[in-house]
Amino acid sequence: MSTFDFGQETEKLLKWLGEFGKDSDGGVSRFLYKPEWTEAQKALEQHMQQLGFVVQYDDVGNLFGRLEGTEYKDETILTGSHVDTVKNGGLYDGQFGIIAGIIALDYLKKEYGQPLRNVEVVSMAEEEGSRFPYAFWGVKNILGIAKREEVETMVDFEGIPFIEAMRKAGFRFQSEGRAVRKDLKAFVEVHVEQGGVLESEKKSVGIVEHIVGQRRFTIEITGEANHAGTTPMGYRKDAIHAASRSICAIMDITKNYGDPLVATVGKVELTPNIVNVVPGKALFTLDARHTHKDILVKFTEEVTAVMQEIALQAGVEIHIDMWMDADPVPMDPGIVAIIKKQCEKNGLNYKMMHSGAGHDSQIMAPAVPTAMLFVPSHKGISHSPLEFTESHDLGEGVKALVGALYELAYK
Amino acid sequence: MSTFDFGQETEKLLKWLGEFGKDSDGGVSRFLYKPEWTEAQKALEQHMQQLGFVVQYDDVGNLFGRLEGTEYKDETILTGSHVDTVKNGGLYDGQFGIIAGIIALDYLKKEYGQPLRNVEVVSMAEEEGSRFPYAFWGVKNILGIAKREEVETMVDFEGIPFIEAMRKAGFRFQSEGRAVRKDLKAFVEVHVEQGGVLESEKKSVGIVEHIVGQRRFTIEITGEANHAGTTPMGYRKDAIHAASRSICAIMDITKNYGDPLVATVGKVELTPNIVNVVPGKALFTLDARHTHKDILVKFTEEVTAVMQEIALQAGVEIHIDMWMDADPVPMDPGIVAIIKKQCEKNGLNYKMMHSGAGHDSQIMAPAVPTAMLFVPSHKGISHSPLEFTESHDLGEGVKALVGALYELAYK
Repeated sequence: MSTFDFGQETEKLLKWLGEFGKDSDGGVSRFLYKPEWTEAQKALEQHMQQLGFVVQYDDVGNLFGRLEGTEYKDETILTGSHVDTVKNGGLYDGQFGIIAGIIALDYLKKEYGQPLRNVEVVSMAEEEGSRFPYAFWGVKNILGIAKREEVETMVDFEGIPFIEAMRKAGFRFQSEGRAVRKDLKAFVEVHVEQGGVLESEKKSVGIVEHIVGQRRFTIEITGEANHAGTTPMGYRKDAIHAASRSICAIMDITKNYGDPLVATVGKVELTPNIVNVVPGKALFTLDARHTHKDILVKFTEEVTAVMQEIALQAGVEIHIDMWMDADPVPMDPGIVAIIKKQCEKNGLNYKMMHSGAGHDSQIMAPAVPTAMLFVPSHKGISHSPLEFTESHDLGEGVKALVGALYELAYK
Repeated sequence: MSTFDFGQETEKLLKWLGEFGKDSDGGVSRFLYKPEWTEAQKALEQHMQQLGFVVQYDDVGNLFGRLEGTEYKDETILTGSHVDTVKNGGLYDGQFGIIAGIIALDYLKKEYGQPLRNVEVVSMAEEEGSRFPYAFWGVKNILGIAKREEVETMVDFEGIPFIEAMRKAGFRFQSEGRAVRKDLKAFVEVHVEQGGVLESEKKSVGIVEHIVGQRRFTIEITGEANHAGTTPMGYRKDAIHAASRSICAIMDITKNYGDPLVATVGKVELTPNIVNVVPGKALFTLDARHTHKDILVKFTEEVTAVMQEIALQAGVEIHIDMWMDADPVPMDPGIVAIIKKQCEKNGLNYKMMHSGAGHDSQIMAPAVPTAMLFVPSHKGISHSPLEFTESHDLGEGVKALVGALYELAYK
């Protein structure tokens, strides 16, 4: 693998694909079933045909490019990621996983010929939920777990119904009772980290062992709005005081638990939010993530109890609403071990880690043995035109994928 | 004083005066120089004339009603308050001080005849700053300390210039070099507490010893906005965490100082304020008040130092801007002692206290020996149609004023 410049080839293809839906500021906006989305899929289809892959779409627009296996024709090793972007996203999120897969398959074909098992790269229709309020549309259709009734009443921000948008792009719902693919034996997704850990630790490749679970809460504290001058401290039911104590407690407890637990208070809103009025109401959010469900549950139960105790002491009312509860998703230990061994063998500068963000892999993993590879995100920036990964690191990521697919499909 | 129902008479006149500028929901909106303001002053003028007071306006529309002194004709004891209101204010703030003064003068005249010194009640043009961004217009003109250039470029929310509004109401700026009144020997203002202390302690009358000083700050903490899932806790520069620690520290230090210190964080604003992003910026306000300047200064210096230390530890930047610094104003100890003695003599249920809010008295006090009397505000509510004071307490407040004016003008 040493002579071919994987990084340069990746950069070239990322720029090429990034032209579809390119914003005036250099970002990319490529929403599901929009003309620029259709054009991107068509361009990928043509590119993969030129490389000699067997290409096909499924009913909803997931695009597959395939190297046929010689030996195990009913076993397929899948790689790839999603072709859609957020509004004004970058060049790397999603499309890097597709480009990495195409380069890897092409390299394997040229270097080793036909695999024993089928190898496929998929350009998945949708993951971000940017046009319609439905994420993971692509992967859920591959697995046959997307339901027609979940999207048939949805409209986009222009009022265009989901079904109409899909038909216009040339696709339709899966036929009822259509057989789900039973041939998928492994899925390996390459993605940018969207965090700053690999860059800080000067690593080129991350091997993901878990995708974190998430619990999200809105906490509403109700005290009493009062005059800032005429209300002695002892008379107050100060909502921001109780909220601040709660936030400090959350952060202290989080620190005690240590990595990989993360807890974020991202949003705070006071009522009436006026300089000379003691706030009568404080609302804040808590986003807590961990790789292990039992710890995530224990942590959130602990902070819930502590916040209730703080509210009781402060004489304010508290209402804690958990509105998201997604379990952690472990990657397949067998595939992770294969990837790790390959990275060592090929001298890649890797790190075992977890994913703090959600990915197609978390939907795939319960059905298909799944693993993920990360490359660094400069300054952790993602969902922005400023997304950036060094050419060298992109190349190392593709190399790790090549090694993994070789082990999974050629042996 | 025992046979006359001061409370009932006060309630009657408050309702009558509250008709001028009455809102549909029962509140009162009576802005400086608006038609309803002019009508209120005219109605008061007529009422005082009927009671036999000598009535006159000054140049800017402060309205005075006078009982002439028989002995000390160049000495005047003044009472009263402001006739303007906030938008959708209540029946008590401001106008109660005028009504109390009118009833007290009328009672004194009927009971004791002409005083030795002149006694005047003033219906001051403006205190709230609700129409134009200028508060204390009335009292500052009485003292000759309002400057033409401070208001001559001001316009109200409809774009009407201050000068035009004043002219339309029939008034004009003071002539240059007009002599300031030298006859004012005392000012006693009656006002609703606008806090809940008297009601909680079941007292009818508060004798104010100090009006608090105020310092107001905006604190801006700048950390780093980061992804809530992919940024380990150790990598974060979390602005709301540092802000919460600061707010807790402020409240702890405030508690250590004890009454009468009050500190309020009324406003908090995060950027970007999104559930799954670590906040990069947190802005909050601090309003601190105390009756003694040295303690207020010591306190604000202490919290400033602590907040800077917290920011340093958290690795975030902090900018602390003090944009208001008003000194405390002591009331005149001699008049306070006279009032206290009178309250005791008349068996009034009183409490020595301070004012946490600003009043005309704080402008008057540096120039004229001044004191204030409070009556309870139900639940501390002020600047609202829900302002309420029991008839009994209103009457006790007027009685305390009668006693004070008798001591000051008849002896």
